[in-house]
Amino acid sequence: MTPTTGPRRIAPADDRHRTEHDMLGDVEVPADAYYGAHTVRAVANFPLTGETLAARPHLIGALAAVKHAAARANADIGALDASRASAIADACAEIRGGALRDQFVVDLIQGGAGTSTNMNANEVIANRALELLGRSRGEYAVLHPLDHVNLGQSTNDVYPTAVKLALDAHIAELLVALAGLREAFETKSAEFADVLKMGRTQLQDAVPMTLGQEFGAFAVTLAEDEQRLAEVRPLLHELNLGGTAIGTGLNARPGYRERVMDHLRRLTGIGTLQSSPDLVEATQDVGVFVQLSGVLKRVAVKLSKICNDLRLLSSGPQAGFGDIVLPARQAGSSIMPGKVNPVIPEAVNQIAFEVIGNDVTVTLAAEGGQLQLNAFEPVIHRSLSAGLDHLTAGIGVLTEHCVRGITANRTRLARTVAASTGLVTALGPALGYETACAIALEAHHTGRPALDLVRERELLTEAELRALTSPASLTGLPVL
Amino acid sequence: MTPTTGPRRIAPADDRHRTEHDMLGDVEVPADAYYGAHTVRAVANFPLTGETLAARPHLIGALAAVKHAAARANADIGALDASRASAIADACAEIRGGALRDQFVVDLIQGGAGTSTNMNANEVIANRALELLGRSRGEYAVLHPLDHVNLGQSTNDVYPTAVKLALDAHIAELLVALAGLREAFETKSAEFADVLKMGRTQLQDAVPMTLGQEFGAFAVTLAEDEQRLAEVRPLLHELNLGGTAIGTGLNARPGYRERVMDHLRRLTGIGTLQSSPDLVEATQDVGVFVQLSGVLKRVAVKLSKICNDLRLLSSGPQAGFGDIVLPARQAGSSIMPGKVNPVIPEAVNQIAFEVIGNDVTVTLAAEGGQLQLNAFEPVIHRSLSAGLDHLTAGIGVLTEHCVRGITANRTRLARTVAASTGLVTALGPALGYETACAIALEAHHTGRPALDLVRERELLTEAELRALTSPASLTGLPVL
Amino acid sequence: MTPTTGPRRIAPADDRHRTEHDMLGDVEVPADAYYGAHTVRAVANFPLTGETLAARPHLIGALAAVKHAAARANADIGALDASRASAIADACAEIRGGALRDQFVVDLIQGGAGTSTNMNANEVIANRALELLGRSRGEYAVLHPLDHVNLGQSTNDVYPTAVKLALDAHIAELLVALAGLREAFETKSAEFADVLKMGRTQLQDAVPMTLGQEFGAFAVTLAEDEQRLAEVRPLLHELNLGGTAIGTGLNARPGYRERVMDHLRRLTGIGTLQSSPDLVEATQDVGVFVQLSGVLKRVAVKLSKICNDLRLLSSGPQAGFGDIVLPARQAGSSIMPGKVNPVIPEAVNQIAFEVIGNDVTVTLAAEGGQLQLNAFEPVIHRSLSAGLDHLTAGIGVLTEHCVRGITANRTRLARTVAASTGLVTALGPALGYETACAIALEAHHTGRPALDLVRERELLTEAELRALTSPASLTGLPVL
Amino acid sequence: MTPTTGPRRIAPADDRHRTEHDMLGDVEVPADAYYGAHTVRAVANFPLTGETLAARPHLIGALAAVKHAAARANADIGALDASRASAIADACAEIRGGALRDQFVVDLIQGGAGTSTNMNANEVIANRALELLGRSRGEYAVLHPLDHVNLGQSTNDVYPTAVKLALDAHIAELLVALAGLREAFETKSAEFADVLKMGRTQLQDAVPMTLGQEFGAFAVTLAEDEQRLAEVRPLLHELNLGGTAIGTGLNARPGYRERVMDHLRRLTGIGTLQSSPDLVEATQDVGVFVQLSGVLKRVAVKLSKICNDLRLLSSGPQAGFGDIVLPARQAGSSIMPGKVNPVIPEAVNQIAFEVIGNDVTVTLAAEGGQLQLNAFEPVIHRSLSAGLDHLTAGIGVLTEHCVRGITANRTRLARTVAASTGLVTALGPALGYETACAIALEAHHTGRPALDLVRERELLTEAELRALTSPASLTGLPVL
Repeated sequence: MTPTTGPRRIAPADDRHRTEHDMLGDVEVPADAYYGAHTVRAVANFPLTGETLAARPHLIGALAAVKHAAARANADIGALDASRASAIADACAEIRGGALRDQFVVDLIQGGAGTSTNMNANEVIANRALELLGRSRGEYAVLHPLDHVNLGQSTNDVYPTAVKLALDAHIAELLVALAGLREAFETKSAEFADVLKMGRTQLQDAVPMTLGQEFGAFAVTLAEDEQRLAEVRPLLHELNLGGTAIGTGLNARPGYRERVMDHLRRLTGIGTLQSSPDLVEATQDVGVFVQLSGVLKRVAVKLSKICNDLRLLSSGPQAGFGDIVLPARQAGSSIMPGKVNPVIPEAVNQIAFEVIGNDVTVTLAAEGGQLQLNAFEPVIHRSLSAGLDHLTAGIGVLTEHCVRGITANRTRLARTVAASTGLVTALGPALGYETACAIALEAHHTGRPALDLVRERELLTEAELRALTSPASLTGLPVL
Repeated sequence: MTPTTGPRRIAPADDRHRTEHDMLGDVEVPADAYYGAHTVRAVANFPLTGETLAARPHLIGALAAVKHAAARANADIGALDASRASAIADACAEIRGGALRDQFVVDLIQGGAGTSTNMNANEVIANRALELLGRSRGEYAVLHPLDHVNLGQSTNDVYPTAVKLALDAHIAELLVALAGLREAFETKSAEFADVLKMGRTQLQDAVPMTLGQEFGAFAVTLAEDEQRLAEVRPLLHELNLGGTAIGTGLNARPGYRERVMDHLRRLTGIGTLQSSPDLVEATQDVGVFVQLSGVLKRVAVKLSKICNDLRLLSSGPQAGFGDIVLPARQAGSSIMPGKVNPVIPEAVNQIAFEVIGNDVTVTLAAEGGQLQLNAFEPVIHRSLSAGLDHLTAGIGVLTEHCVRGITANRTRLARTVAASTGLVTALGPALGYETACAIALEAHHTGRPALDLVRERELLTEAELRALTSPASLTGLPVL
Repeated sequence: MTPTTGPRRIAPADDRHRTEHDMLGDVEVPADAYYGAHTVRAVANFPLTGETLAARPHLIGALAAVKHAAARANADIGALDASRASAIADACAEIRGGALRDQFVVDLIQGGAGTSTNMNANEVIANRALELLGRSRGEYAVLHPLDHVNLGQSTNDVYPTAVKLALDAHIAELLVALAGLREAFETKSAEFADVLKMGRTQLQDAVPMTLGQEFGAFAVTLAEDEQRLAEVRPLLHELNLGGTAIGTGLNARPGYRERVMDHLRRLTGIGTLQSSPDLVEATQDVGVFVQLSGVLKRVAVKLSKICNDLRLLSSGPQAGFGDIVLPARQAGSSIMPGKVNPVIPEAVNQIAFEVIGNDVTVTLAAEGGQLQLNAFEPVIHRSLSAGLDHLTAGIGVLTEHCVRGITANRTRLARTVAASTGLVTALGPALGYETACAIALEAHHTGRPALDLVRERELLTEAELRALTSPASLTGLPVL
Repeated sequence: MTPTTGPRRIAPADDRHRTEHDMLGDVEVPADAYYGAHTVRAVANFPLTGETLAARPHLIGALAAVKHAAARANADIGALDASRASAIADACAEIRGGALRDQFVVDLIQGGAGTSTNMNANEVIANRALELLGRSRGEYAVLHPLDHVNLGQSTNDVYPTAVKLALDAHIAELLVALAGLREAFETKSAEFADVLKMGRTQLQDAVPMTLGQEFGAFAVTLAEDEQRLAEVRPLLHELNLGGTAIGTGLNARPGYRERVMDHLRRLTGIGTLQSSPDLVEATQDVGVFVQLSGVLKRVAVKLSKICNDLRLLSSGPQAGFGDIVLPARQAGSSIMPGKVNPVIPEAVNQIAFEVIGNDVTVTLAAEGGQLQLNAFEPVIHRSLSAGLDHLTAGIGVLTEHCVRGITANRTRLARTVAASTGLVTALGPALGYETACAIALEAHHTGRPALDLVRERELLTEAELRALTSPASLTGLPVL
């Protein structure tokens, strides 16, 4: 072969394979595969985790959307003929609809900054488009994975763009799950609005509050996370598509960048997609992923704290706090009959730990970027998408199988409030800190109710006492 | 002592000490100390890092602002007489002005969720206020650290409020430093606007760009960080002051919360300070610190990446990239004469690593919060304030001692572009991917310039070649 | 049902299901499933990651070994009749041989501290044993998952024991891979023994060395990791089997603990397995996993550093270091023809980042353990086993597809050494530091060879110069 | 100045300064300073954390030991005359004894891979040695910081050697503290040997144990950490001293390496110090620091878990577990009179979080090493030494101010065991899992003691019941 020939003829190797060609030579590709030579090499190079692109439908869909938009844009500016553009667009539409997912066979962890992912997409789309044109797979002289499907593009702009769109779709799902959990806590907060209990700081009895306030705080804290997550999305909508190799836009024709963004907005329905003002910066920068990872970690931290609280509040049944009861979901022990464990919160804790660990992975990958590109975006995508999926699943289970079924131990809670020296705090302003302190200590050491000691010493009148220790006064709530 | 007596008389212990009292008994306090019994106990309990509150002026100032605002608010609502209120306010004003810093002697790492920090402030303010009233230190019957300075407050609302205000002040300083670095990069970007060089992806020669584009990307990426940091500040302006112990507002009188926020806005000049809508949630939630830490980590990651790039680009002088020269700041070696090392970027890298590690500390502390309070806010404050200070210092040094003095190896850069096969990419659309690939491989293997091979084979005319490889065409810039 | 009845009769629900029963009521189990009621509940409770126990053959094998050993031990001490014991043992042997893997259907992330994993194993073994006894699945009155398969055991001793055995098997595989990589570096070190090059510190030219020394250091550093990994294995061989619920050994009969350890040593062929001296501590402690994770992180850090070095050394081809050439494995770009990227080291970097992140996950899970048990061992197991698997795979690829094919740019390296001012260091002791420094600076600024300046000034004789700059003298190697 | 002149004459600049000189020009040094030009530049370059070398006496002592040993070795091999060698040795001895600590003024975070630390030591030692020789500071023509004090050395071997010796000294202190805490737990374990209580798994009541067993487990787990720490020390004793710049030993004369190691063993009293087999590898490798950091993290994780447990067990006094009482150390609240918080464990938790975060810092610094050297050892040293110091301090406080004073709530514990359904587990083998389960559920739902239900249904005889639920039988302990 001379270096100046055009696209290479495909020689059938045997019945079960076709021969393709890349810069390193000939490659045998399974005859029925939609992927091609580059993908086959990548599969051989990265037999690492067993988890392939097929496990991330959002990424596949996003890649197809980008390729679809590019084909349309290239047609618009006359860089691609209508026939090829339509075939490519139709192939992409099928893939976005869920077709050919099993053809995305490259490992999620891969070298090459996503090149193999882009190549896998280019090849599958090209071969499906060839079929739609009535040609055979591998007839790249007719429609080429790089010269046509990848026209005006580089992995360096296609891959980050697709990853951002994919993560945006994951976030949308997480937000639905979070809203569900928040609403479940709001429902419980209303249900427990009249349940007085001891608040605890540093695991020590503090002052009274309602169980409704406690569950209400869970809802409020999740609502804030929803806001923080929503604020990350616009950052993901800023894309470097059109920057090609290093952001200089080399080989992308005039008008392409504007057109491809228009088509992408239309295809995805995300009107806020926009071109980065500095494509060189945008091509190398992964700050948005670090930011998203930080927010996911925040969600994980809060979720873990909530699960820790649910496990603490339901500890017992005899030798624990026993404020609440979680619904029993399965036998808790292979040896201890009747034991029930807080298995759902425990599972969610573990997902939170995973997400927090993933944040370090993302951080390292981001810090390791060099010069005009970050080569480690595949592991960034893998970590973030896994965390998003697992959080969404875990939150769903927590909502349905745990929070909705929680009940309050009303009798026990009432008994504990009555017995607590924490009520003395409410008398502090009236008695002075040091006197109140002495009362509290005496109550604690003698086991006598603190209010009785106050009465005995005639430090306050009965009316004063009643006013200071009414539920409304204690909890700051208007009426209970 | 009977539990019902009022504030306790102070018995002089010896010439060098006065005796104070708390719930655990008598405590000897140095006679000239403005702090008191609670502080003395805390110093004994936490001899841990040797780094005390005195190392964090922003926190001391913020505590004084809160106490000042509280005294005014309590006077407004009639809970505190004018004389005591003024004395407290005056003492706070002095402390905000920098006085008595050495009286803040408790270790930054402390148990008790900040109680010892609050107590240290209460005692110093009370004793200074007593002096201003013409009384002796320790005359708490006249003006009491808890009954008067801490009136209507709890550590649980005072401490997080002060920490947020302190961090906000740190961020303001960091933003100034970041802007300085960004501007230095912008200046260099303009200076290097006409310096053509090879862009590199995955450390391999990619396609040409200008050194101005490279430095411009550093400026743009930092500008984004400035935005992200600025977005965190409003979250820090949401305060739980008035929530007292667990957010129920127990013991804070009607009207106090609104008044204290008014005074705090006035004293700090931060008009956007506002009360959290749910004080129970706000008292236990440390999400804002996790968020801030995530953004700081993002800044650290980018800064580290930039420093890595500066070290790469200046590697050599003979056996490295040699694109640029960093200003020499000190002898690089105790054994290798004449060696100069990139010591400033290396130092900043290390600060970045510290900040990234601190983020994990903050995460663990946040995750460890339980029920109505997070007991680990002291280490959260310590980690974030240290990171902010070190980033600010490191960025300042990087700006002044490194970036401003960077020069370009113009000759070497021009030579490398001319020799590079990366130019072939620009011919890709004209030649087709596979032909261009063959040309590039032949150029690489024979060592001959790729453009010569194209000419030799008459694949493109001279005019086409010139158009495709002009600097403007290569870098996407209008004119060079 | 009255609480005092024995094992419950199984009522066929429909053709495709059988009805089983647990403490929460009836459960429909697929008729052909070997797992039972507890597993079905766990599958419903934990639809989290999609990655099930079936993805971890080492864990399944280890569980079967433990159950096998327990059945034998119970038979030895008369707690289990010979017929049931044999059936259980035979079922376990089949599973250890690879059978029934698809019956292990619970998600790897699960609440309950591994209870569902233990239950899944108990049920599959019981039902297969029932088949071997000629009975139907679900006839638990004959052979019961808990009363017989789990006899004398608790999840709290079975699960950690199985996890330790599984991780030990993973480590054995990793050690093989590490040895292969080390040997590949040793081979290259010998091949490059005579290739002189500039050593670099802080990316600046330092003093000469051989490429053989550089690759030899990679081999030595990996050899140390092999040692550290080998040192962890004995810690994994200390087991809490026999401790049952919390380590007190409740319900395990006298003699059982010694017998089960004997059988386990025999079955696994690991003679160093031993009982922990304090089973209460051993049941709650996960220190060994933290230790192992720390060592894995060490391996990851070194591997990442090596991959970073390989990418640096092969940077170019024109605008980089160009010391070595990595074998081309695939086309490097969808837009830049002829570009080849270091895709294999890049993939291994990402695995290293994953392992480092996993270490944080393991740390959080370990820190979150409470009182007599750590509920988060499932995510510890998942993180460690994934990291071990991926490291093993990545190292294999790095060895075969990268290191073995590395070549040296001998001409370029020789040219760089000759041009370098780094040679001046060798003259330092003869000239004094300050004179040598001045020579180096002049050489650098004028571009003239430093040795020429020394000759010109007659600072050293030609013989002295030759002796001080011979390869042997420079590199500390006997003969080159 | 011409490049060929020897050491430069010192011109007095003014009364308060002397003028020194380095490769970048003249430097004004305070007249009374023992440090010199390189140190002054480093102070200007690194105004970063405010924490200087003076805060790390172990590092200063180790540097002096290395310089001392080097002077002796150089004298032995005839490279240094006796007079200079003795003066250097005497200066080093003084510094090891604690003198001149305030002359170590460079920031702990510094670029240059420790060069500025080495230079600071070289200069202080040279100037003190000059004084001992009756000369003035700055008379480097007589005795030079580099030509004499640093003779045969490079920062690249001196600095890592000193860091390892310093960390070894820190570890020795930590081991003393750990042993003290372990012994305190052993004492408590003996004291509580007869206190029966409910064990808890997953915060749910499990089966009985003794409080002695619980505290004994804390002791055992710490003993294991002592072992792991002890195992790291030999790795720190492997040194690269003699490797000079990149491990090739350039400029170190024959015999020097053996002699310097001999002297260092003698001076430090550490007989196990030895030379690394491959100095090139040893110079670039920081694996030992990663390993040490991993073990420190393990210690931190366990310590944090113990503190979490102490806080859980002492939660209450009314609304918590209330198993034990921690000694009161200070008032717990500025608003809640009489509240006592677990402030000591809380402080230690925070130190643990710091250490865990530091591990990530160390990891990043280790991973960032490039080619022949790791430029980030200063932050590795800073993080590890801070963590070691803080752990040592925190453990000391925990031992003295918390663990030694813990008391058991014997009445409450006994009452809880009697009421618990956890006793049913002990009947499991006799009743069968499913029957025992039904009993437990009925007991839980009716609130009746489980043993009464067993008696009522005549499922076991009274003698059987007594045997199965005796303390000895329940806890696996011989006699209680």
